[in-house]
Amino acid sequence: MVTNIQKILVTGGAGFIGSNLVDALLLSGHSVRIADNFSTGFRRFFQTNENNPAFEILDINLVEEDSCHQAVEGCDVVYHLAANADVRFGWQHPLRDTQQNLVVTQNLLEACRKQGIRKFIFSSTGSVYGRAKQIPTSEDCPFPTQTSLYAASKLAAEGLISAYAEAGVVDATIFRFVSILGQRYTHGHVFDFVKQLLNDPSRLKVLGDGNQTKSYLHVNDCVVALVRASDSNSKLDIFNLGTNETVTVNQSIKIICNTLNCDPLIHYTGGAEGWVGDNPHIFLDTTAARATGWLPDKTISDSIRETVEWLVASDWVFLQRSE
Amino acid sequence: MVTNIQKILVTGGAGFIGSNLVDALLLSGHSVRIADNFSTGFRRFFQTNENNPAFEILDINLVEEDSCHQAVEGCDVVYHLAANADVRFGWQHPLRDTQQNLVVTQNLLEACRKQGIRKFIFSSTGSVYGRAKQIPTSEDCPFPTQTSLYAASKLAAEGLISAYAEAGVVDATIFRFVSILGQRYTHGHVFDFVKQLLNDPSRLKVLGDGNQTKSYLHVNDCVVALVRASDSNSKLDIFNLGTNETVTVNQSIKIICNTLNCDPLIHYTGGAEGWVGDNPHIFLDTTAARATGWLPDKTISDSIRETVEWLVASDWVFLQRSE
Repeated sequence: MVTNIQKILVTGGAGFIGSNLVDALLLSGHSVRIADNFSTGFRRFFQTNENNPAFEILDINLVEEDSCHQAVEGCDVVYHLAANADVRFGWQHPLRDTQQNLVVTQNLLEACRKQGIRKFIFSSTGSVYGRAKQIPTSEDCPFPTQTSLYAASKLAAEGLISAYAEAGVVDATIFRFVSILGQRYTHGHVFDFVKQLLNDPSRLKVLGDGNQTKSYLHVNDCVVALVRASDSNSKLDIFNLGTNETVTVNQSIKIICNTLNCDPLIHYTGGAEGWVGDNPHIFLDTTAARATGWLPDKTISDSIRETVEWLVASDWVFLQRSE
Repeated sequence: MVTNIQKILVTGGAGFIGSNLVDALLLSGHSVRIADNFSTGFRRFFQTNENNPAFEILDINLVEEDSCHQAVEGCDVVYHLAANADVRFGWQHPLRDTQQNLVVTQNLLEACRKQGIRKFIFSSTGSVYGRAKQIPTSEDCPFPTQTSLYAASKLAAEGLISAYAEAGVVDATIFRFVSILGQRYTHGHVFDFVKQLLNDPSRLKVLGDGNQTKSYLHVNDCVVALVRASDSNSKLDIFNLGTNETVTVNQSIKIICNTLNCDPLIHYTGGAEGWVGDNPHIFLDTTAARATGWLPDKTISDSIRETVEWLVASDWVFLQRSE
């Protein structure tokens, strides 16, 4: 139990990271409202909290301004995690990232401004570093250029949040994540591989050459950092979140296959990048976050193994997710 | 005359920089279409070109997608200069920068994508460097945070353009300008000061303490760089544009007063920043642009004096501009 009980909004609260954050906030005694359009989130993530009076679900579309006002009403803290997370297929609907990641962010900031809500916490991405010239990449690395619509929209949202913080409208914390793994993980590399191997353990198709370096963080470690941020009253903090390790796609395939006890024939599509705009090497310098006392607990290997185990135990997600 | 005659769109072509660019492009023999909603642009900037068959005016609002398709149709090159340039009063209409600077940029990029137009040239701003840690500031300075809605929207547009360039949709050149001066300059510090002094040469109100360092570039030098960019076929270039000097606001007041032959009593509002989000010190490292052979011709002192002389000779602008 915490002494400072707060009313907290989590946008995208029915998603992977969001729902894990909600559990942690409720456990700490806070009152939590989620705003989610359930386009990729799941109600079953809240089975244990359905009748919790400190928990409220708003099934709304935040692209509409009124929804944002409704969502933030009476809150002390806003965690803005809702986003179009379909990084890979951005070019099939190029306006979607701008609408869902930028316009929604500004609608929420305006709602906070009008209702006097002080604390705004945002989930950005290590992809904003593009093809980083400095590895591991620190928050103040050389000014990068963008390589995907997804990252461009996240950077755009960061810029808006910074301007609002600078003007004294909100205190803001921006987190730039590596890829997150763990319970309720429902899209990305590991998801795709496990799905393929559960269908057919004898073969695996891999985008690129398998040598892309990836950095992963367990969702529990991510959530610990997010929860701590609600207490900060700095005007603007930007923190990378990740582990001090990387794995290649080939190494993560090995861990997955060991966990699933299979030995597939691997077909590589070739090339150094998985898809147009994929950042082949993401490895974040997390010195700044660690200086606040945060320390990730799980290794990448643990995270991959636990994710595979959760997916195997939760195979309903493969029926719900067509990708 | 150039050998490679092109059909060129200039958005915001009726504005200060745009109309000067149009003159230069027409002089080079190109065919030029402008797209402008004339909210801040002036038809009289085109008096000499009104009957030029190589010149076309589209009076349209680019926030509408269809207008963007109409604007780029048949063009080889797009100069995207249209923007909400009201930096100072951004907080009176916080969604305007996003709409006019970001959504329009994406509508244009989509129109280019659908119509196969290869070259996209964009006017960004040195304000994207926020409170720069490195002075003079180079294009790859430490990753900055945003201090105004205007700069945040320009950075957001840069991010989108980079993502489109990265995906091979367009070849792009992004220019980050210091403040531009010269003929047809119709808003900003120097405009405000000259307007005040023409009304009453005995007194002058100055935002801040007068010690803010400003960097200016003459519009002719800016246009030379813009015109050269149409020939480049790099995937993505980002260039700072400015002179190798700075002036303080007080120094520029001195040049203005000398030119106007007046000696006002100066009232400072105080504080190091002119307004919320004003960047008190902008000084750009232009090594990259100079490496391409570009070299500014006019000093800041020349630029201020010529601007004042143009404003005095064109006092109709003060009747049209209420700010």
